[in-house]
Amino acid sequence: MENFVFQNPTKIIFGKNTVSSIGEETALYGKKILLVYGEGSIFKNDIYSRVVQSLENAGVTSIEHSGVCSNPLLSHVRTGINLVKKNDCQAVLAVGGGSVIDEAKAICAGSLVQHDVWKFFTGKKTLRKALPLTCVLTLAASGSEMNSGMVITNEEKKQKFGYGNKRLFPKTSILDPETTFSVPPNYSAYGAVDAISHLLEFYFTTKVSSTPVQDRFIEGLVKTLMESCEQVLQDPFHYQARANLMWSATLALNGLSSAGLGRVGFPMHMIEHSLSAIYNIPHGAGLSIIMPGWLSYHLQKDPKRIYQFGRRVFGLHNQSDIKGSELTVQLFKNWLKSINCPTSLHDLSIFENDFAEIATNALSLAKIWRLHKYEQKTIETILHLCT
Amino acid sequence: MENFVFQNPTKIIFGKNTVSSIGEETALYGKKILLVYGEGSIFKNDIYSRVVQSLENAGVTSIEHSGVCSNPLLSHVRTGINLVKKNDCQAVLAVGGGSVIDEAKAICAGSLVQHDVWKFFTGKKTLRKALPLTCVLTLAASGSEMNSGMVITNEEKKQKFGYGNKRLFPKTSILDPETTFSVPPNYSAYGAVDAISHLLEFYFTTKVSSTPVQDRFIEGLVKTLMESCEQVLQDPFHYQARANLMWSATLALNGLSSAGLGRVGFPMHMIEHSLSAIYNIPHGAGLSIIMPGWLSYHLQKDPKRIYQFGRRVFGLHNQSDIKGSELTVQLFKNWLKSINCPTSLHDLSIFENDFAEIATNALSLAKIWRLHKYEQKTIETILHLCT
Repeated sequence: MENFVFQNPTKIIFGKNTVSSIGEETALYGKKILLVYGEGSIFKNDIYSRVVQSLENAGVTSIEHSGVCSNPLLSHVRTGINLVKKNDCQAVLAVGGGSVIDEAKAICAGSLVQHDVWKFFTGKKTLRKALPLTCVLTLAASGSEMNSGMVITNEEKKQKFGYGNKRLFPKTSILDPETTFSVPPNYSAYGAVDAISHLLEFYFTTKVSSTPVQDRFIEGLVKTLMESCEQVLQDPFHYQARANLMWSATLALNGLSSAGLGRVGFPMHMIEHSLSAIYNIPHGAGLSIIMPGWLSYHLQKDPKRIYQFGRRVFGLHNQSDIKGSELTVQLFKNWLKSINCPTSLHDLSIFENDFAEIATNALSLAKIWRLHKYEQKTIETILHLCT
Repeated sequence: MENFVFQNPTKIIFGKNTVSSIGEETALYGKKILLVYGEGSIFKNDIYSRVVQSLENAGVTSIEHSGVCSNPLLSHVRTGINLVKKNDCQAVLAVGGGSVIDEAKAICAGSLVQHDVWKFFTGKKTLRKALPLTCVLTLAASGSEMNSGMVITNEEKKQKFGYGNKRLFPKTSILDPETTFSVPPNYSAYGAVDAISHLLEFYFTTKVSSTPVQDRFIEGLVKTLMESCEQVLQDPFHYQARANLMWSATLALNGLSSAGLGRVGFPMHMIEHSLSAIYNIPHGAGLSIIMPGWLSYHLQKDPKRIYQFGRRVFGLHNQSDIKGSELTVQLFKNWLKSINCPTSLHDLSIFENDFAEIATNALSLAKIWRLHKYEQKTIETILHLCT
């Protein structure tokens, strides 16, 4: 295990009928807040009215900032920041999935500075303070509800960049699995895939050899994400499956699964970010295509590790490392197909003549994320394996 | 999964050469502190001098309160509280294992009130504020370094009672595995057993049926604790084994492994507390005796669950639930023997004619811990299975 510092102060309120606590929790940080949400899904399941009622009961006034889209846009973040400044909001409440929470974090970051918020993402400025954030999560996927990171797309520059800072941990996040009952099958599956991708990035990019605590934690979460995703696709109202999916997705990226693994990278996310920046595809769909391709590329480098994953997650045994690792990637790809996720760029009508452009876009991120061994050619090779 | 609230704000600084951060971390909370430690083991490994040097570098003055024993005593806690009050200490620093940290927590709790600290343990008073606490952990065992609980023995009343409150989370805990190199084999093993016992209490007393996240987390930690304990007994200077043991023990009782399991109980600890209150035996040694006995008693009630544990931790397969669960308990008992821990009360010269007294003592705790189904006769039956 490598040296690490771990601290995660977010308060999680998990379970049935917990949405009504949001007013009380938010009132701790401000009586006038910006309420951030997406394109209307929170009007299903009565979530919106329960949130507004709870805020009212707690004496909290809200200014609404709606219309956050998936792969949230910098221009929309800027509008939110202007709203906060104009109305002197003291806190931000995000009601939605990872995109809504990420945009809310960007608003929290940009509201207390005079310069443009994008400067945090390009490394030109460091965050020193941020507005407090509370969340009601409505999609099991990104883990943003219990971490300090965010990803925003600069639509002018076609850049999808991330930034993290300890001041961006939500103060409180409410996780009521029932709020996810209305998530359609494809997005439920994309969410599970997103959470799995976070775990696989850690598992397969660590260079530390003795990490049994983290390995088993990750393997257990992946198994639970797979099982509960299957159950949710069978029955969208399966409470326990929704609950297990939700809590696993949160734990996948709250800092614990990577603590002790040393410097890990996000090469699969790097390539996916370019895909969704250029084609605006759902993040989970992009990851579902990139993961098996990246693992195939990674096969020669670390068959032992991939086969360990195959033994412990897929129950493989009695194979050589090479054969076992190949089978592992195949089984994983089959599973992604079984939950109706795309596993080839061709599935999304992205063809070989675009690969150079995608790779060039990814390269700009490779520099920022210090993934120096990913050159133009490497990325193109991986893209060819994603077909 | 059951509804839960989870929040754990403790900052963990983990790894080699981290002890020297303690001055800086502690200075955040006070410039005059009470330094709590045990019976001298911190003079080995140079821990004491490194701590004192680090405090000095950070401009922190300390009043020393040494001599904390295992199963820390109320009278000694009271002495510490008097020292804090007399010297106007602003914070407490614990350097040691779970006993030292628990005593330090009790001092933090009792220093800001006029009444006796024991009233928190008997439920007569509720904690509203506490002094800030920082820790340097030197024993992988109790998990106290990242939770809000403590256990203190009232030697006059022969009561070993626990109390928990969110104000008792350490602010920062430093976990340097090298500080545990000098822990002798028996105490290394007792520490692993202690951590395993926390996980087994959760695993076998939950009444919630769908808990795959928690089950796999617990199973993974138990496997790692077992493996790394064996490695440590082979080679006390095996850094990775010490590291894995240390982090697993912390994670075993930081709130995460039980979040979502509903109301869990500590029946094995209840009986062990009586043993160590009466005989002053090491906590881990007592647990090593009680666990197989309690599991044997529990066999008829929940063979399915015990066999799940046996399949996933010991690799059992192709057994009936009954046979599989019996084998699981046997394998676990064998493992405890293999690390030279006692597995019978007779090993510690505790015999049948004492069982009534032990059970009576445990009963007083059963009431406080709301373990109502544990009557005198039940506890005596379990004690007979612990031979």
